[in-house]
Amino acid sequence: MSKGVTSREDNYSQWYLDIVQKAGLADNSAVRGCMVIKPYGFAIWEKMKAQLDKMFKDSGHVNAYFPLFIPKSFLSKEAQHVEGFAKECAVVTHHRLMNDPNGNGVVVDPEAKLEEELIVRPTSETIIWNTYRDWIQSYRDLPLLINQWSNVVRWEMRTRPFLRTTEFLWQEGHTAHATQEEARAEADLIHEIYARFAEDYMAMPVIKGVKSENERFAGAEKTLTIEALMQDKKALQAGTSHFLGQNFAKAFEVKYLTDQNKEEFVWATSWGVSTRLVGGLIMTHSDDDGLVLPPALAPYQVVIVPIPKPLPEIMEKAEEIKKALEAKDIDVQIDYDDKKRPGFKFAEYEMKGYPVRLGLGKRDLAQNKIEVARRDTKEKVSIPIDGCVEYIEKLLGDIQDNLFQKAVDFRSEHTTQVDDFDSFKKTLKEKGGFISAHWDGTTETEIKIKELTKATIRCIPLDSKLEEGKCVLTGQPSKQRVLFAKAY
Amino acid sequence: MSKGVTSREDNYSQWYLDIVQKAGLADNSAVRGCMVIKPYGFAIWEKMKAQLDKMFKDSGHVNAYFPLFIPKSFLSKEAQHVEGFAKECAVVTHHRLMNDPNGNGVVVDPEAKLEEELIVRPTSETIIWNTYRDWIQSYRDLPLLINQWSNVVRWEMRTRPFLRTTEFLWQEGHTAHATQEEARAEADLIHEIYARFAEDYMAMPVIKGVKSENERFAGAEKTLTIEALMQDKKALQAGTSHFLGQNFAKAFEVKYLTDQNKEEFVWATSWGVSTRLVGGLIMTHSDDDGLVLPPALAPYQVVIVPIPKPLPEIMEKAEEIKKALEAKDIDVQIDYDDKKRPGFKFAEYEMKGYPVRLGLGKRDLAQNKIEVARRDTKEKVSIPIDGCVEYIEKLLGDIQDNLFQKAVDFRSEHTTQVDDFDSFKKTLKEKGGFISAHWDGTTETEIKIKELTKATIRCIPLDSKLEEGKCVLTGQPSKQRVLFAKAY
Repeated sequence: MSKGVTSREDNYSQWYLDIVQKAGLADNSAVRGCMVIKPYGFAIWEKMKAQLDKMFKDSGHVNAYFPLFIPKSFLSKEAQHVEGFAKECAVVTHHRLMNDPNGNGVVVDPEAKLEEELIVRPTSETIIWNTYRDWIQSYRDLPLLINQWSNVVRWEMRTRPFLRTTEFLWQEGHTAHATQEEARAEADLIHEIYARFAEDYMAMPVIKGVKSENERFAGAEKTLTIEALMQDKKALQAGTSHFLGQNFAKAFEVKYLTDQNKEEFVWATSWGVSTRLVGGLIMTHSDDDGLVLPPALAPYQVVIVPIPKPLPEIMEKAEEIKKALEAKDIDVQIDYDDKKRPGFKFAEYEMKGYPVRLGLGKRDLAQNKIEVARRDTKEKVSIPIDGCVEYIEKLLGDIQDNLFQKAVDFRSEHTTQVDDFDSFKKTLKEKGGFISAHWDGTTETEIKIKELTKATIRCIPLDSKLEEGKCVLTGQPSKQRVLFAKAY
Repeated sequence: MSKGVTSREDNYSQWYLDIVQKAGLADNSAVRGCMVIKPYGFAIWEKMKAQLDKMFKDSGHVNAYFPLFIPKSFLSKEAQHVEGFAKECAVVTHHRLMNDPNGNGVVVDPEAKLEEELIVRPTSETIIWNTYRDWIQSYRDLPLLINQWSNVVRWEMRTRPFLRTTEFLWQEGHTAHATQEEARAEADLIHEIYARFAEDYMAMPVIKGVKSENERFAGAEKTLTIEALMQDKKALQAGTSHFLGQNFAKAFEVKYLTDQNKEEFVWATSWGVSTRLVGGLIMTHSDDDGLVLPPALAPYQVVIVPIPKPLPEIMEKAEEIKKALEAKDIDVQIDYDDKKRPGFKFAEYEMKGYPVRLGLGKRDLAQNKIEVARRDTKEKVSIPIDGCVEYIEKLLGDIQDNLFQKAVDFRSEHTTQVDDFDSFKKTLKEKGGFISAHWDGTTETEIKIKELTKATIRCIPLDSKLEEGKCVLTGQPSKQRVLFAKAY
């Protein structure tokens, strides 16, 4: 490609990295595995965050903030949690630097060793449940519906911007309930909110399902997930909501008095989505010309480019149109640059995925017309300036719908039912995507299939019908199909 | 006090801790010096953040995100910076835990030692300027006007919720400019925004001034500050904006090509405010009955309490009033609790600093009246329900103004001009507050005064008139008065 974006066909991984770089979303940093989120990439995350935050608050949740550091001993209190989780993490051992006695900058002061090491949070269940012990005494203190927006660190060996980074940004909800039913309902509610956010805002269709025991969050009794399909036919786990039972309450001794004055352990959930969603957004919609953004999450939905340059009479009209669009809650940018050529600018806005580009020239103005180009289909039309606001408002809705429908169709085309292991392997190799197959329900079989094919069980879909069948690997009886795929 | 709040007169420090705890703002955590910000405290911070973020964006700034970790070697690149700053900080030395071979939970894996230690950012100039080197080539890339909302860690020995904690939340702006004039203007602009935010939203009057060399940020050529006076007559540095000259550009070799095609070092600013502002807010307005919040930053400006309990006809009217207030952008909470008595609730909302409390009883309703209680003066009036929305809207404005005026008056009463050192010491001891005095301009004298009195130069006020005088300690000639105070 002339713009220097590798095509998806040639090298999908490189295409992804090219988009991240050329659309100005993120940059590598001097710290291994940590990225810098650039202003344009961060603006997308801010839009995601604002919408999710509203959805959480509308459903009764509040935000709080817990410490970055977790005492090492906390991690081993919940046995499964430490097994599954806490090994690859950043460990703080000292609290002071000193001038190097040899004059070479600074060194760690050996005198300033911590009595107990601190772990940079990989997730906050332990420190939060240690705090909840003080906050919860009676059923009147429940439920606690708390969310936190924060940074977390997991020492990843292989990283990729947004999809897997050592430090990432996320939200983590941690709720406490009096009853099992209530906690299960909470996990379901959040699962539903995540799915709604993915589909209605990201225009990214997701399969709602339950994780197999093997893929469950460490410390959870049930993990709900939303799974999306990327253009390279690999699945992306986009958000998880966990029913934690009483595991953390027992590990941290969090009990409450019921209205019958009986002491009980508290029930818990936790749930999170992260900057990984930005990676999912990129991979769902973008093409070989750059980023494609759904209007609901684009930092600007519309850009107005004066042609050939920002002449006063053009800019006056542009400002007028901008104001009218903003009155409809549409975010608009006007290009005031007077050095670059329109063609160059067009390519730049295409690369950055602005959903709608308006071209406004002198001749257009004389004819009271404006050129409207949509990013998703690359169609251009010239329309009268009068009424253009209503046209654009509707167009943005159409683009949002079109992106979603396109992604739904792509997923349908790449979801295959198979009933024997040869077809399983062949489909995975030649076509990829989701494979709907019977499984005997054992972790052993699941692991064996992963070893043989690299495919994992993404989820047991909530809408999967009960049907008698035989496990695709072992031939053992199975009662429903599950979804397999290679995944990020 | 019956509510268990120590009076300010008895013990100001304990009063502060009592307010923080009983109003539900923050809690201690299991990690030394780190606090948990509870939902109500966090809601105040969110309101602050939303307003500041808007002010930054309205003045052309964008948000981004840089890594939590800074390679140790970066800190020593700017000489003054490392001297003044980077010693007391959290040092990451390892990236893995392992099961203790003796079976006691987890231990640090000695195999996983980092080649170069990572520092948890105490501030981000170094990692950001290391990144800017790649982002800035020509004058066309300038200015860069970037802000980041993040957590930072400074290993403090004595901590106090919000005012001084090991981890705290803040925003840090880092801008890059082609010319010195532009960078200086940026530092001034932000200084002005901080002052406007403090006065118009926090209702906290501030003195705008310049720091003496000794109190300057490590690596800055000029530090602008806003200084507020707390009720215990100690000063609080509430926000700083630094002109950094070319110091960081030189340390990280960040150059740009001018439009004359000449290579030049870039000019820089940095600026920040933190969760410390919540501490300032508490200490400016609150009283012995609890928190007092200015309406502009209160999570809820109004609470409606049904009397004696939430009867259907009362709640219906309450919902109606709530809706009408919300249409005016007023945040309203209705108390639906049917167990606690009104008197108990009143005390609770007083403790939490709700600016306006509405009491709505059956008899009120029959007379079409509602009781309005304001938190700042504790005045109560009964007014007709018709027209109450306009009344409350105006009242919230009055409360905001009253809080500000009260704080201005308090500061005026506690700002004293003195011209000799005996008066200086006497004023400081007996009256406290700001002392306006002549100073000979030397760091030596400044340090001597601090040793003798614990007072520091808070700033050289921008509006300080030039007048001939003699240094209050040395008698050496001085050209203007500066402000001294004991400070947080």
